[in-house]
Amino acid sequence: MPVVSNKCIEDIKNERKKCTFNIQELTNYLDGGAEKTKERKHLEDYFLSDPELKDAVPIEYLSHKEKYENAIRISCLLFKKVNAWLSQHESGSAMEAYQSILGGTLGSAVMKEGFPFAVHYVMFIPTILGQGTMAQQAYWISRAWNCEIMCTYAQTELGHGTFIRGLETTATYDPSTEEFVLHSPTLTSYKWWPGGLGHTCNYAVVLAQLYTKGKCHGIHPFVVQLRDEETWMPMPGIKIGEIGCKLGMNTVNNGYLGFDKVRIPRDRLLMKNSKVLKDGTYVKSQNEKLTYGTMIFVRVVIIKGVAVTNLAKAVTIATRYSSVRRQSELKPGEPEPQILDYQTQQYKLFPAIAAVFAIRFSATWLWDVYNSVSTDLEHGDMEKLPELHAMACCLKAVCTDDVNRMIEICRFACGGHGYMTCSNFPNIYGTLTAAVTYEGENTVLLLQTARYLIKAWHQRNTSKTMTGTLKYLQEYKTSSLYLPWNRTLHCIANAFHLVAAGKIKSCAENIDHLTQKGVSPEDAWNHNSIELTQAAQAHCKAFIVDIFVKETEIIMTSEPVQKVLVQLCELYAIYWLLNNLGDFLVYSNLNISNVEELRQKFTSLLSDIRPNAVGLVDSFDIHDDILGSALGAYDGNVYERLFIEANKSPLNAEPVNESFHKYLKPFLKSNM
Amino acid sequence: MPVVSNKCIEDIKNERKKCTFNIQELTNYLDGGAEKTKERKHLEDYFLSDPELKDAVPIEYLSHKEKYENAIRISCLLFKKVNAWLSQHESGSAMEAYQSILGGTLGSAVMKEGFPFAVHYVMFIPTILGQGTMAQQAYWISRAWNCEIMCTYAQTELGHGTFIRGLETTATYDPSTEEFVLHSPTLTSYKWWPGGLGHTCNYAVVLAQLYTKGKCHGIHPFVVQLRDEETWMPMPGIKIGEIGCKLGMNTVNNGYLGFDKVRIPRDRLLMKNSKVLKDGTYVKSQNEKLTYGTMIFVRVVIIKGVAVTNLAKAVTIATRYSSVRRQSELKPGEPEPQILDYQTQQYKLFPAIAAVFAIRFSATWLWDVYNSVSTDLEHGDMEKLPELHAMACCLKAVCTDDVNRMIEICRFACGGHGYMTCSNFPNIYGTLTAAVTYEGENTVLLLQTARYLIKAWHQRNTSKTMTGTLKYLQEYKTSSLYLPWNRTLHCIANAFHLVAAGKIKSCAENIDHLTQKGVSPEDAWNHNSIELTQAAQAHCKAFIVDIFVKETEIIMTSEPVQKVLVQLCELYAIYWLLNNLGDFLVYSNLNISNVEELRQKFTSLLSDIRPNAVGLVDSFDIHDDILGSALGAYDGNVYERLFIEANKSPLNAEPVNESFHKYLKPFLKSNM
Repeated sequence: MPVVSNKCIEDIKNERKKCTFNIQELTNYLDGGAEKTKERKHLEDYFLSDPELKDAVPIEYLSHKEKYENAIRISCLLFKKVNAWLSQHESGSAMEAYQSILGGTLGSAVMKEGFPFAVHYVMFIPTILGQGTMAQQAYWISRAWNCEIMCTYAQTELGHGTFIRGLETTATYDPSTEEFVLHSPTLTSYKWWPGGLGHTCNYAVVLAQLYTKGKCHGIHPFVVQLRDEETWMPMPGIKIGEIGCKLGMNTVNNGYLGFDKVRIPRDRLLMKNSKVLKDGTYVKSQNEKLTYGTMIFVRVVIIKGVAVTNLAKAVTIATRYSSVRRQSELKPGEPEPQILDYQTQQYKLFPAIAAVFAIRFSATWLWDVYNSVSTDLEHGDMEKLPELHAMACCLKAVCTDDVNRMIEICRFACGGHGYMTCSNFPNIYGTLTAAVTYEGENTVLLLQTARYLIKAWHQRNTSKTMTGTLKYLQEYKTSSLYLPWNRTLHCIANAFHLVAAGKIKSCAENIDHLTQKGVSPEDAWNHNSIELTQAAQAHCKAFIVDIFVKETEIIMTSEPVQKVLVQLCELYAIYWLLNNLGDFLVYSNLNISNVEELRQKFTSLLSDIRPNAVGLVDSFDIHDDILGSALGAYDGNVYERLFIEANKSPLNAEPVNESFHKYLKPFLKSNM
Repeated sequence: MPVVSNKCIEDIKNERKKCTFNIQELTNYLDGGAEKTKERKHLEDYFLSDPELKDAVPIEYLSHKEKYENAIRISCLLFKKVNAWLSQHESGSAMEAYQSILGGTLGSAVMKEGFPFAVHYVMFIPTILGQGTMAQQAYWISRAWNCEIMCTYAQTELGHGTFIRGLETTATYDPSTEEFVLHSPTLTSYKWWPGGLGHTCNYAVVLAQLYTKGKCHGIHPFVVQLRDEETWMPMPGIKIGEIGCKLGMNTVNNGYLGFDKVRIPRDRLLMKNSKVLKDGTYVKSQNEKLTYGTMIFVRVVIIKGVAVTNLAKAVTIATRYSSVRRQSELKPGEPEPQILDYQTQQYKLFPAIAAVFAIRFSATWLWDVYNSVSTDLEHGDMEKLPELHAMACCLKAVCTDDVNRMIEICRFACGGHGYMTCSNFPNIYGTLTAAVTYEGENTVLLLQTARYLIKAWHQRNTSKTMTGTLKYLQEYKTSSLYLPWNRTLHCIANAFHLVAAGKIKSCAENIDHLTQKGVSPEDAWNHNSIELTQAAQAHCKAFIVDIFVKETEIIMTSEPVQKVLVQLCELYAIYWLLNNLGDFLVYSNLNISNVEELRQKFTSLLSDIRPNAVGLVDSFDIHDDILGSALGAYDGNVYERLFIEANKSPLNAEPVNESFHKYLKPFLKSNM
């Protein structure tokens, strides 16, 4: 190893000295208390100290097939280890432990590109619990929980994603044998995407159009055996394989599945809700909305577990790197400055730091509402479900879109080194960017929220007091646009609500205008859909800012922590205001004469946050193994790590690659 | 193969029937004439019909090492084939042929992740030509051109990129032996990134700080032998290897290089400009600016060859896919519509189609100016160099940033399938996004343009008529902000200039204000650098719009082609106006009362372009093998291709993977 300067390590140490607040205090606050921090670290140590769970060669050097085989090896080891942990620890449910490993940051340290067993725990078991009868639950949960079988959940088809009613797979009941016949009538009806489906699972919940007595009753869930339990060979009539390489998540083993008239017993239809009797009589579900729950739950997990954690990783890496990287000159003759001192660099990183807090607080709100609505639902009360659904839709869309963009900005902030796989940016991006599309494509979700908002707009004068997130629509008055502007956070937060209301109002009026001219409501809707998505985004941003402001008001921390959180809240709000300045000038009480002052405030906030930047990302307390980045480790020893990582490449194991003798030397000697 | 519906193929055929203009006419126009189109297709056929140049297994399934070995095999074949082509065809220079293969779209069909030989042609040979004496050229060019040696260009170091003066590698002259001693004093001084450096090259131009007679004379280029020509073993004192996996371009074989007091003869310093005499006397260059040329040339190539072609690919794939993908419902009970009929989908794709034209026209302008300035430079006339440099900087930055974002929007527009490697989006993005950082990091480039603009702003009253791209600064009057708004393209284009001038003016005033208060000029600059980058972006966008408008005015095509180009020009301008609406309200004569009308115009342009969308991307005429996408092929047969691609995965070659027997079965039988 060549000489390494100790300067970067000194640079990052100095950053920590500059920090104006107690980092540990903020970590505990984010974890939900010092005890929770301790528990988290205990769990991390247990898994991350195990050498068996570490890859000898980083997986990016392996072939696709080797990656898969390694993933199965590690998964088996890991899940045994989870079991051992569970038998030693009484606190927390088993499901929580699995979730913290499969959905949380911990799993990403052990398996960067995702688990082939994930859907077994995240989708199969919850679906059986939610849609199986007691007898079905008893049978399938016990087999699945003990890992006698490995299962997945097959809904999406090659030609059908968003629009569930469009699924083509059929399940036709044959009363003569009391069986369902599963069939894929076309190539587009092949199931496509389920995790673990390729080669890892032998059972699946399959969603199919139920036909009985010649009539279609829509989509229902069936448990289907895919592979023989002993030989693992595909069952007769089952066409199965993996779907191939992807931008990321290449160890998830996403698969395809086609049926050639596959027969399954009648009791494989999950019948908690709807039933088919022996003679083929269809008995309808009492309450179809109950299946909403899982969908909303998954979106909460995406915001909290995927969006927040991946942004926290990205901005930790970029901020620490920016504190040790020195480049160019601010003043002639002076030493090269830390790049964190450039205003343009602060502009790339600090809004992302603020967004980690902003999105986290909104996710916590959503999680609390989800739990409270779930309890209500058990008592048959569905009143708050539409608001929960609308907020889950737009928050999932806005947060994953914002984080998607911000991760790339963090990567660019690290220059060429951010392009290296060992920076971990490629993997962080590959993981997060999938969430823009899965579990509800973002544009589709925004339009769902927009539909809720337009309906609310029309009802605002006739309905009684609206729920919390809609109250501003009832309070909206055109005269608000003439309120004097002031510098307070409340004034800014109120402007976000004015923009949202103004955009919703404008969409509603444009749609009405078109329908009055004789355009069909559907065409009028489609013709305004760009603006409708933007109205939903504005509603969501107003909500996030509002929650952030409230959090800074009720927060129970020391004054230095509170002060920096207020700065981040202001930065977040003004950043998005300036990024949508046109909307604020059109729809809020902000005037052109106020803009320059806001810009000045914004840049002075960057300067205020500068000394705390490294402290803030430290407070996320991401274990070096979870961060997985040569650029972002706690000690700042960037260059040594880059060099060590480079030398893990199998190409570097030999001074001369055999392709020289085989191809290159004959070519160079051929006198072209 | 299961049943495939012929519907998507019909859908795309119907799109072509709808097209209002002659697609071939537009193709010829973009190629520069029917003859050029014919030549291009001839070259494409020659290379793309060769089965030897096709990979049996898509490279994404290979290990990193296998990818490299395959790349060397294919490169040797390909370059022999280029030579054969050259000996058969007299038209065009050899260098042009290499460039069209290495830098153009053709190369990407043969080797998706880049060539390990590229730097040999793109950087090494031009550097010898630009900086070597006649004797040095005679010796090195003949060896390099005949491929007796394989070479690279080593400038960037592990700790130093943008700031060339900060490079640490030293070359100290020893008059006693008439040698230079190359040395890497630290780990951060290791060369890092050069393509082909890892295992492919045996010579390099190395940039190092030249020391002679105890004095440093700054960065100079040296030719250094890295590996033995017969054994390919690293030469004594040379520490060399590859830098590891990256987000993309994994067959480029980027390498690192350290020197432990490596001695090279004096004549290995390229001495066309500066010299070191035998006794160690340093003789200074007469004209240091001449090396600017290559740098600008590379940026022109990035805009034309990398940004435009990759965006054209991305939007071709997404538009064709959107014409065959059917999803959800616009009206209850009607069949699922083509997703291209959704306004939100048009919003994702059509601005990208427009951008292909916009960027292309600007790139052509830049290319023409580059050639004219190069001629001027040969006559010692450097007057137009600053404008060329300033435009090359901001165009490279703005175009790669825009394209980077638009490629991802195109990918998202394809839903989950865009995440598949076989969509080719991951590779297109991996290739383009590197260009955001390399050859001048975009933020740094924007600040270089900003420096030129601020200087021009201060000189606008004292200097005589300013060059074309700055004229608007001289013409700027505050009273322009009160000009009446109208719907013409000229009014919009003028507003772009008002915004640019307004932002430059605001930056200049803010900087002056701070320096008058006693802030140092450097700190005042840094404190305004966010706004400065945005001013440079505004200048660049105004330029692109201006060039696009002019092109539509002088274009010599039939009326239907011209009509659609005008629509695209309007769409491009209004898209960016609405995306920066705040700036237009603050700095131009656009008023809040004009906004709604612009929005209406924008959505009606989307409807106008809708029937021509597939025709427009067809006019880019990208060969299916160059497009390399299961989603984007000409015939629209999307689902069959996705299925065929999935089955190329080596994992699908066996029904049961061996990891079942080794790991999974024991795990499932262990009664966890």
